[in-house]
Amino acid sequence: MKKMKVAKTIKAVRALVRAARTSGRTIGLVPTMGALHEGHISLIKRSVKNGDFVVVSIFVNPTQFGPREDFNKYPRPISADLKICKEQGVDVVFAPSAEEMYKAGTVTWVDVEKLSEPMCGEFRPGHFRGVATVCAKLFNIVCPDFAYFGQKDAQQAAIIKRMAADLNFPLKIVVCPTVRAADGLALSSRNQYLSAEERQDATCIYRALKAGEEMIKSGARSPKTIISRMRRIISASSALTGIDYISIVDADSLQGLNRIAGRALIAVAVRMGKTRLIDNIIVDAGI
Amino acid sequence: MKKMKVAKTIKAVRALVRAARTSGRTIGLVPTMGALHEGHISLIKRSVKNGDFVVVSIFVNPTQFGPREDFNKYPRPISADLKICKEQGVDVVFAPSAEEMYKAGTVTWVDVEKLSEPMCGEFRPGHFRGVATVCAKLFNIVCPDFAYFGQKDAQQAAIIKRMAADLNFPLKIVVCPTVRAADGLALSSRNQYLSAEERQDATCIYRALKAGEEMIKSGARSPKTIISRMRRIISASSALTGIDYISIVDADSLQGLNRIAGRALIAVAVRMGKTRLIDNIIVDAGI
Repeated sequence: MKKMKVAKTIKAVRALVRAARTSGRTIGLVPTMGALHEGHISLIKRSVKNGDFVVVSIFVNPTQFGPREDFNKYPRPISADLKICKEQGVDVVFAPSAEEMYKAGTVTWVDVEKLSEPMCGEFRPGHFRGVATVCAKLFNIVCPDFAYFGQKDAQQAAIIKRMAADLNFPLKIVVCPTVRAADGLALSSRNQYLSAEERQDATCIYRALKAGEEMIKSGARSPKTIISRMRRIISASSALTGIDYISIVDADSLQGLNRIAGRALIAVAVRMGKTRLIDNIIVDAGI
Repeated sequence: MKKMKVAKTIKAVRALVRAARTSGRTIGLVPTMGALHEGHISLIKRSVKNGDFVVVSIFVNPTQFGPREDFNKYPRPISADLKICKEQGVDVVFAPSAEEMYKAGTVTWVDVEKLSEPMCGEFRPGHFRGVATVCAKLFNIVCPDFAYFGQKDAQQAAIIKRMAADLNFPLKIVVCPTVRAADGLALSSRNQYLSAEERQDATCIYRALKAGEEMIKSGARSPKTIISRMRRIISASSALTGIDYISIVDADSLQGLNRIAGRALIAVAVRMGKTRLIDNIIVDAGI
């Protein structure tokens, strides 16, 4: 069995990638914040299947957390994560410190306007600027041919695709389907914050999304009507502490739709107890 | 004699660079807006001397011009530029259209905060965001090992160095000395806008910079005193229509200095008739 390397410095990961590239391999990057679950594993499997030299980055990126968010309590089970990566046949885990990633005096930011403004952008100011900036950095550090992201973070995926195109990064963004628990809840590292009751109630999110999808498939074209039906489904949950948004937008531009057409993204962000959960479905409504 | 290629598309320049890299060459990028003069030629010569496969980009970047600036009248002598590149042994000229560089729907910007705010940043809002963004794009399109910039645009050079470091671009920024006319005027594509009288008076800029340098070398450490002496020299010129700024700042961070120490940048922006001219000198004032 090949030996997995763990690189803690930019210099080290670059040397490993350079050697792999020289030997003719394509490079795959799976950017993560660790606390790996089946969703992340599906991205790793996709990169392995693609024949890539697989680099998984594990970095809880401080610049994408707001001052009142869960940066400090975000789970960091590094041993379990390394074990998973090893089992999946990852070649290199890149696990830098915050100081390695953000040298003193850092003042450069990548901003993806318009796409960063609605939905999570309204509730997490600065979040997507942090995400876009750290991804630009990771792309320049690892120089992958393919970078794999999950559809579960739909707005993030759309923003990174847009950034890669706009800044001409020489790589392909691969967006992989959301992985769900048997009852439909989208896997997320934050699910472990949920109490048993909250975990149970959280299934309302997927039920609401499926209801919205069904309505579109049955011919409904008014976001307002669909959103109000979804709101009723979610509001029935007793563990719910708030709905940040229920939005139906164009899946690529993330701009609002007066009438549903084309690839529509139905996206939801709610709070169950103190935990914020997001999920989404893309529906092709045709023309 | 080798044949110089002209690439008008991103795809074409990437193919040429890829072939050169496969054959073991380092790649040098000289980003320009054309209207090439001895200043640009010094950058090309530096890249040639370094043994690079030399790519010169010629692109009058619309996003770095303000709405009332000289984008439309900026000189575009493309045949003369190509002739110069050929004579200098350039391998590829990358001369894309605005549509090739900025696809419809572009919304991503690279912002280098703090360094973009003072000096030209005050007088040309959005200018350095446009510069940083187009350089990030060119870096991703050409993937150079070395990118060459002129010290004449001191703030631009500092910003690009900072951006390359902050976003971990895998390349080295090489800043080359300002090239001057015999009477000291820094070469600039905008000098051709000057009338004979304005051209004559424009020598006051370099005389003021040299006076400032002399004062520091003689022990002066107060920016205020030096700037007021420089202002007197420049104000004596009859073609002068305005002084945007005379600044003495830290050469790397571009932040103001109460007392001159270390590598100090003396930078000037003035208007002669309708033409805006900039120039600078770096002085090492020690500790």
